[in-house]
Amino acid sequence: KAFKTGLVRAEFYNPRAYTPYKHRRVDDAPYGGGAGMVLMAEPIARAVEAIRSQKPDTHVVLLSARGRIFNTAIARRYAGLASLTLICGHYEGVDERVAEHVADESVRIGDYVLSGGEPAALVILDAVARRIPGVIGNAASLGEESFENVPSCEYPQYTRPEVWRGHRVPEVLLSGDHARIAAWRAAQRKNPDET
Amino acid sequence: KAFKTGLVRAEFYNPRAYTPYKHRRVDDAPYGGGAGMVLMAEPIARAVEAIRSQKPDTHVVLLSARGRIFNTAIARRYAGLASLTLICGHYEGVDERVAEHVADESVRIGDYVLSGGEPAALVILDAVARRIPGVIGNAASLGEESFENVPSCEYPQYTRPEVWRGHRVPEVLLSGDHARIAAWRAAQRKNPDET
Repeated sequence: KAFKTGLVRAEFYNPRAYTPYKHRRVDDAPYGGGAGMVLMAEPIARAVEAIRSQKPDTHVVLLSARGRIFNTAIARRYAGLASLTLICGHYEGVDERVAEHVADESVRIGDYVLSGGEPAALVILDAVARRIPGVIGNAASLGEESFENVPSCEYPQYTRPEVWRGHRVPEVLLSGDHARIAAWRAAQRKNPDET
Repeated sequence: KAFKTGLVRAEFYNPRAYTPYKHRRVDDAPYGGGAGMVLMAEPIARAVEAIRSQKPDTHVVLLSARGRIFNTAIARRYAGLASLTLICGHYEGVDERVAEHVADESVRIGDYVLSGGEPAALVILDAVARRIPGVIGNAASLGEESFENVPSCEYPQYTRPEVWRGHRVPEVLLSGDHARIAAWRAAQRKNPDET
């Protein structure tokens, strides 16, 4: 929906199109040994330079297991940017000089390992795009949402039927008493890791 | 690659195909008021029942902002399962009775809000599939990896050239001294949030 309305636009840059090395090579073995291949700095740096020549103010983020953890505050900050560049590392890693000298920031989406940054880029795109005014239907949805006040979490939601397979909706939600409902919901917000 | 080799297979079940409600309806307004729509329990329960009739031992996970946080330990556990069912919530939420009476477990991938569970499902699919023997090339890659020992994080990687735009690879990595290299890498592992 964000793409269809034109509120968000995504473009893809392949480091292979920018590499100066033979056979469009973009990776090589790690110095010091170890399994797997490491993405070289130069193809990524050139791809980012191509982007920066079009969008001088783009904020360049390396998706990396060594990055800081992505959260709602970062999503809010990115949603205010005119342009965001996400570098999707692959293989065993990306030459550290990309984090040091090419990217503005390094970010990870959680404490788990992915085969590449692409799923992480999708997650960030979703989390950021939905904060752009007009992308989700009701602006009120954002304010009420979980993680706006970390570490509390979203309250439970119920919809029809009132009794589903013998399980009733909590009575308070049917009371029509807005103050009681608000109090119940606040009490139900919790950090799932604390239960 | 996991799909092509047949080591992993994914199937998609749409709750709309299982709903008993008119116009293939799957959501309704939240009890107690609030923005957005809530996915109803019955269409999801029926879809899960269809899956369980094929895969009686499938482990059913609801992707939810109220779930516990996904991490490497959970990825490892899921990789040992013969079948994993991921329920992708959408809209403002999923009727809580799905978490209570349909799913075996609720999980979130981070402390940020997504418009739906689909990007989260992709992340889990990637994190789990790569742990299945044969999916990634070198089994050694898994053992050395970040987050195996949370909260330490992956060490920096470098590849050619030795000097890139004036920035040198750390000398120790060129030393050929495996003990020194291992010690340096261990010292470089860090929790990025602690820096």
